[in-house]
Amino acid sequence: MDHAKRMARLTIRLDFDNGASLGPGKIGLLEAVGETGSIRRAAERMEMSFRQAWLLLRAIEDMFGAPVVEALRGGSGGGGSRLTPLGEAAIAHYRGIERQSLAAAKADIAALQERVKGKARSCRKGAKAPQSRRSLRRA
Amino acid sequence: MDHAKRMARLTIRLDFDNGASLGPGKIGLLEAVGETGSIRRAAERMEMSFRQAWLLLRAIEDMFGAPVVEALRGGSGGGGSRLTPLGEAAIAHYRGIERQSLAAAKADIAALQERVKGKARSCRKGAKAPQSRRSLRRA
Repeated sequence: MDHAKRMARLTIRLDFDNGASLGPGKIGLLEAVGETGSIRRAAERMEMSFRQAWLLLRAIEDMFGAPVVEALRGGSGGGGSRLTPLGEAAIAHYRGIERQSLAAAKADIAALQERVKGKARSCRKGAKAPQSRRSLRRA
Repeated sequence: MDHAKRMARLTIRLDFDNGASLGPGKIGLLEAVGETGSIRRAAERMEMSFRQAWLLLRAIEDMFGAPVVEALRGGSGGGGSRLTPLGEAAIAHYRGIERQSLAAAKADIAALQERVKGKARSCRKGAKAPQSRRSLRRA
């Protein structure tokens, strides 16, 4: 169990004071639009329906009050979409927060990773809770 | 919309290389056990069933390969539970990571918060996706 580079992955989520939130799902979708140049292809990559992707993008736009994706007209491909500067900025800030967090908390993350066993057992859905609260551990 | 202290809330989630993860749900439950001295009361506070709480605590124990909660025997209250030093350490590391992340990424978090509108509109479940990918924005 002595891997040279055992390092936990850190994911962040931001909840804003207006009730909106930003996490890996929304940012991943924005990145996919930027990389594929198409909401439809981004949806496929994220394994969601076009409608789901569209609703998620609209939720991001509503959150910022301005578009994060814009339609491209014409050209041989007949359009497609690209990120607006706001969309690019949202990704950059989010990934920056993630990077800075990982760097700043390295010691505590490593300390937790140290204590985590080599292989996780999943939380067995079929497991029976004990009658007594005493016996959390298996006998 | 000029609040003196508009600040986003940062939540972190750690995914370890063995497939286990640690986020606000597990840590909140551990804290509730520590504060209430009882898995049952902790479950009530977290608005989950005793069974859910017990399974979640067992998943945490499986992740670390050692107990995070221990039963107290006897006394006038007839038992109850308390955190083990490992349980306390898990909370301390996690909250430390959160604190350090928030401090390190303050500027980017503030920059995102700046751009978020005063009031979020939720992602309307009933909204219809457009036929064309062009019209993400409402006309």
